[in-house]
Amino acid sequence: MFRPLATPGQAGALTDIEGIRVGHATLEGAGRLTGTTVVVMPAGGAVAGVDVRGAAPGTRETDLLDPGCLVDRVHAIVLSGGSAFGLATAEGVMDGLYAAGHGWPMGAPGEVVPIVPAAVIFDLGRGGDFRGHPTAAEGAAALAAAGAHTPAGSAGSAGLGAGSAGSAGLGAGSAGTAGEEQLSEAPESEAPDREETLTEGRVGAGTGARAGSLAGGLGSASTILPDGSRVAALVVVNAIGSPVDPRTGELLAAHHCLPGDLPALVTPDPGEVAAYAAMRHTEAAAAGLLPGGATTIGVIATDATLTKAGCRRLAGAGHDGLARALAPVHTMLDGDTLFAVATGARPEPCLAGLLALHEAAAACVTRAVARAVLAATSVTMWPGTEREQRVLSYLDAFPSARDGSAPSSPTSPTC
Amino acid sequence: MFRPLATPGQAGALTDIEGIRVGHATLEGAGRLTGTTVVVMPAGGAVAGVDVRGAAPGTRETDLLDPGCLVDRVHAIVLSGGSAFGLATAEGVMDGLYAAGHGWPMGAPGEVVPIVPAAVIFDLGRGGDFRGHPTAAEGAAALAAAGAHTPAGSAGSAGLGAGSAGSAGLGAGSAGTAGEEQLSEAPESEAPDREETLTEGRVGAGTGARAGSLAGGLGSASTILPDGSRVAALVVVNAIGSPVDPRTGELLAAHHCLPGDLPALVTPDPGEVAAYAAMRHTEAAAAGLLPGGATTIGVIATDATLTKAGCRRLAGAGHDGLARALAPVHTMLDGDTLFAVATGARPEPCLAGLLALHEAAAACVTRAVARAVLAATSVTMWPGTEREQRVLSYLDAFPSARDGSAPSSPTSPTC
Repeated sequence: MFRPLATPGQAGALTDIEGIRVGHATLEGAGRLTGTTVVVMPAGGAVAGVDVRGAAPGTRETDLLDPGCLVDRVHAIVLSGGSAFGLATAEGVMDGLYAAGHGWPMGAPGEVVPIVPAAVIFDLGRGGDFRGHPTAAEGAAALAAAGAHTPAGSAGSAGLGAGSAGSAGLGAGSAGTAGEEQLSEAPESEAPDREETLTEGRVGAGTGARAGSLAGGLGSASTILPDGSRVAALVVVNAIGSPVDPRTGELLAAHHCLPGDLPALVTPDPGEVAAYAAMRHTEAAAAGLLPGGATTIGVIATDATLTKAGCRRLAGAGHDGLARALAPVHTMLDGDTLFAVATGARPEPCLAGLLALHEAAAACVTRAVARAVLAATSVTMWPGTEREQRVLSYLDAFPSARDGSAPSSPTSPTC
Repeated sequence: MFRPLATPGQAGALTDIEGIRVGHATLEGAGRLTGTTVVVMPAGGAVAGVDVRGAAPGTRETDLLDPGCLVDRVHAIVLSGGSAFGLATAEGVMDGLYAAGHGWPMGAPGEVVPIVPAAVIFDLGRGGDFRGHPTAAEGAAALAAAGAHTPAGSAGSAGLGAGSAGSAGLGAGSAGTAGEEQLSEAPESEAPDREETLTEGRVGAGTGARAGSLAGGLGSASTILPDGSRVAALVVVNAIGSPVDPRTGELLAAHHCLPGDLPALVTPDPGEVAAYAAMRHTEAAAAGLLPGGATTIGVIATDATLTKAGCRRLAGAGHDGLARALAPVHTMLDGDTLFAVATGARPEPCLAGLLALHEAAAACVTRAVARAVLAATSVTMWPGTEREQRVLSYLDAFPSARDGSAPSSPTSPTC
């Protein structure tokens, strides 16, 4: 029970949790390199908690997640670029959920307040325009991209979400603005297609992200536990710390990954490791040490039943997964924040089940970081400015890490 | 600055921080296998914070460490076996400090209240007698073993501790009861001997500890930062999680260690790795999953100037070090608690210095876990009961990990 035999979920992503949908809005070009990702809960919401472990967070609606506070369910969680400006994206998500009748019921029919906590990363200016950040419009677009919601009539009830859950939201791809056109009005009775997965890499909130001196991005991973419940994580890696083991050039998280998490990799050439070390040194000297300039944020989701306090504990367990994937992490310059949500479709775990759940949550976070970094592509940041810089993907910085004997596409990890 | 060139302190232990002294009381035999370790601050105390990350903690005087609370200095910190019963050891430490005039000044001369936070591990019954736990007497003995305090006249003043700091307290050894006889009345003007180090392994609070299925114990490590300030950690490893990498049999923390931290080690034989995995499986099935049955506790100390909030942040950084050394950690069954203290002998760090301090603190915690596990010796636990069991040290479980080409004594890691 301390080392559960972890089985990746069918899609290997947050959308493996019944009723959870994910949508991205990606802004790339015209001075922008940023975006927004929305995690939408089943109808009626999901119990939630948060653990903020970085010293420079940017958040919204996190105080109500304290176990002593009244509201015990959230209807969506927003992860966004744009630093504190990006918190405005939650407004668009709230408006969309309100229009569909989803929110905390306040009395009369239709009078609901959608509960939408949010956390942001700092990516301002990386597209060339410091104020080219996501707004409420991108929140709305990401919500639309997540696909149709479950029937509104059940808002306020227990969010079991079984049976009528929407399908996994496919993201907007790695370029262009995700728009309303992607709203998929799937029949509500349609069973979710478990083979679908969500787009990872430089997409949504991960579009302008960096991971140490490399391109960062968005990644996800999931596990089926021995008791049959599922846990999954979705992270946006914009860390000041490095995801790379400085001794070997391998990803710190690689050894925690399960078969299928990553394309086949080998230990890279020592020359590439030395070049990376030199790049890190130069970057560190030039970084300017801006508080809030880095952050890893994410959402852990499970279909087990947990209290708000239990969700906060689950989020805390996830932070150990960050510690194993990034070094350093939780610094004065990071706003590292993890949310955890429990849909309650399955029973409350026994104590052994809870231990396994926490350990798997940490592992999913670690694996999601690896997938985020592997899926990210090289990108030119601060274009047209004096800071213009080509930021390499892991596989462009360590091309020898590709295992030539394996056919996997390195930028599209499969599960 | 993200990867500071860390230089181990001269003694490689918590006592590298000027004015910090450590004393152990070890109870072994006659039904007892437990003990107490006291970390004594310089005269006037040290600013302190705490981060409790396990779900089953046993603590005392931690609420006052909240940054909003009045008292901003502690005079000692107690780490003890005996589960919640062991919190009584703080009484003996308080009495001793009071008698010497050390404490929070309440007005009239001599009217002081020593501030002595404490945290405990669960080791009840491992010596054969469930109630053979440390008491106030062991707290007093550990305080005495830490050696003479600095002059009492400075109690209540800023605890710079420079110049008149006591020497490093040598522990009581690995067997027998540390007693008042060990009280060393060293001349107060004597400069500390930096080559002294503290006893590690199954000593003091680490006497009855376990680390996964192996013998646990107490370890320490220190670093000199680029700005000249020091940071060090002392941990008592009684984790439910394992310190061993299940893929290789190596210590998870080994790769984080600095030259001199550990005796020379090699990757152990696969047969030993398989045997350990089988042992873990059997132990897990039989563990009974007792809440509070495991815990890693410790103290991080620095000579930099930090606020209470800064100390709490430093303690939090240390928990990342636990995540890298133990898996799982911070579970529902662990009471993982780290204190951090700042003596203020050196200036407040700049932001880059703070980043380096946090990263080094995490590394010291990781290294201290490795040293604790390597220094621990095999022991028979629950003797004379139906649970009697030989609990192996790491090097007895993985004898092939000893590097025959190196002369180091495996049970006495040197710095």
